[in-house]
This record gives sequence, structure tokens and C-alpha cells, in this order.
Amino acid sequence: MDFVKALIENKLLLIGNFVLTSGKISPYYLDLRRLSNYYDIFTDVVNKAIDKIKWLEFDMIIGIATGGVPFASFIACRMGKPLGYIRMEKKVHGTGKILEAIVEGKKILLVDDVVTTGGSLLKAIEAIEAEGGKVVASLVIIDRLEGAEKKLAEKGVKLFSVYKITDILEYLLNSNLISESDKNNIREYLVKNIE
Amino acid sequence: MDFVKALIENKLLLIGNFVLTSGKISPYYLDLRRLSNYYDIFTDVVNKAIDKIKWLEFDMIIGIATGGVPFASFIACRMGKPLGYIRMEKKVHGTGKILEAIVEGKKILLVDDVVTTGGSLLKAIEAIEAEGGKVVASLVIIDRLEGAEKKLAEKGVKLFSVYKITDILEYLLNSNLISESDKNNIREYLVKNIE
Repeated sequence: MDFVKALIENKLLLIGNFVLTSGKISPYYLDLRRLSNYYDIFTDVVNKAIDKIKWLEFDMIIGIATGGVPFASFIACRMGKPLGYIRMEKKVHGTGKILEAIVEGKKILLVDDVVTTGGSLLKAIEAIEAEGGKVVASLVIIDRLEGAEKKLAEKGVKLFSVYKITDILEYLLNSNLISESDKNNIREYLVKNIE
Repeated sequence: MDFVKALIENKLLLIGNFVLTSGKISPYYLDLRRLSNYYDIFTDVVNKAIDKIKWLEFDMIIGIATGGVPFASFIACRMGKPLGYIRMEKKVHGTGKILEAIVEGKKILLVDDVVTTGGSLLKAIEAIEAEGGKVVASLVIIDRLEGAEKKLAEKGVKLFSVYKITDILEYLLNSNLISESDKNNIREYLVKNIE
């Protein structure tokens, strides 16, 4: 998969031992914040994302700041849709709002770069619903498959993803790009953590 | 100007008395973070921005987070350019970098929504140059004309803006959209503050 090669080549996906903020040790570290640096790869992902949801009826795209905003913006630009964003921390100055959008009465497509357990998406859904918007679906580049889909389904929100982390790691497990011990760590992690 | 009407109508430009974080009192408050909520107005601004810099040679667009990122993203999407962004505060987790882009050896177009004295743009230029990039120009939606152009020129960086605040306020001064006393406050502020 060219996408996986590009992630490894550009150090957006690191293989090794990484301590997550939860304290859990992960055999991989994924950071897509620089993905838009690579125009061809990024627009390919954007096009694949649009293919997944182009039949969906919605009024506005909300990106989760900061990581989700370039992806949300490219989708909005290509589909001709209004765009807003949501910040996950309270700002110090100004209006004090975290949702930079008027969502009342609107059908929202919620967009982020990566989802793990779904915490950020759930908080964003709450904030949007508190202001009278309705999240009709959520869309991410990579689903790390650690429970988000189920949690979002309980809220009535379908989760679309361009890639699942298992697609990406499976490609690596069948490649010569990483060592045997890294492969074993990944297999072990997948057994324990993937839903 | 339809743009000014849209700013007032959608409360992106407020007229009254506002205490800025510097302690200064301003007769207007401008916040473009929701501008991308209005697709037609936003894309009109994006098209006008592209007209200003389409002859310029550059490799990558860097948007200043969070406000500048939707604008930077739409320009990148329309012009087919790589995109990155810079965050003005250090992040707590992860890699600790504020520049989400590999800029070494690259010509950069720096993009934000609004510029006042140019502090954010100057910090961004320093950060980009520290990593080996070269900012060839900066581009904003509105220049509040409080010294940024001159400061950036001293750094050798030309500032382009789609609108100058005087264009916007002049339109208001000649309209029936605001009261006489608001007009007087605006005139007084302009005399004292505009460079």
C-alpha cells in the first residue's frame, strides 16, 4: 500500500515502543498532523474519504482542531460545503466558546484525523448537540479500532474511516519494512487491544 | 461591500466598545474564525486571495493555527500546494514541536486570518527559518493596519491582504448600518491607531 509506505517514509508512523498518555505501551506511534505536507498522498486520502460519504445528506463539516482541520477543510473545499471547527480546550481570551460554528438546526459531518477510543469525537458530538446541531456521521482517516465505532453507534452516529489500523499493520506484517521482533510486538498488541 | 454586510450580519464584526487583551479599547471587534461557515463568502475571499499571490513562487503553505488553518487549507486545496500549520503554544503531549511541517529548503507562503501588529506572523517566520525554511510572503484576509506590514518588510517578508480594515470601516462610515456615535468612535480610533 503506497499510503503505508508514505507513512513510514515520512515518519508519520513510527514502529518501536511508545508510552501513550494512558500509560499503555504501544508498538506503533501514529501522527498524521504532517500528512497534508504531502499533497498527492493527502488528496488521495481526501478523495477516498469523499467516496465513502458522498451520498450522505449534511449541511456543514466540523473538523476537530487542530489535527482534523486540514482534512475537514479539503473535504469542504472539494464538496462545496460550509466548514467550522471545534477546539477541545477552552480558550483564554475572546468569546470563550470552543465550537467555532453556528450549528443550530444543522446536519453535521464530524471530521478528525485519527480515532482511538472515540473520546474527542464524543465530546464534540455533545458540544454540537448542546448548541442544537445534529451529527449525522463522523469520518476519520485512520480508525485505531479501540472502541470508538461501538461508542459512537450507541450515540446513533456512524463512524466512517478511510483506513483501519489493522489494514495498515497487516501490510507491515507482510512486508520487509520492519523487524521480526517489531512484528511480534505488533501481533501481541493487536490481540490484546483491537476490538 | 457584500463582505462587510456579511461580517456584520453574521456577527463576525461587532461594533461597540471592546477591551483588547493589550488593555486598549477598540470600537470594533473582529473575529473571522466562523467565516468558513459561510461557504460562498469564504470561497469568494479565497479566490480574491489567490488572485493576489498566484504569480508567486512557493513550495508550501503554512497556516497559523487555529484561525488561519481553514483559509490556508482552502488556498492549498485550490492551488494544489502542500500544506502545514504552526501552533503558537507548546503542546503538552507528543513531539513538543509547534511547526507541523518539514520546511527545510522550502519556500513558504505564510497564511493567517487577521493581522494586527504582526506578532504571530513574526514568531511563525522565526520558527520556520529556525528549521531551514524561507518565508517568501505572508497573506491574510484582513490587515488591521497596526504596524505589521512595516515589521514584516524589515524581515524581508511582503504582506498581502485581501482587505484592509480601513476599506471595511470606511464602508461602514458611509452606510446606515451603525449609529453616529459608533461612527465617531471609529474615526477617533482610526486617527490614533492606524499606520
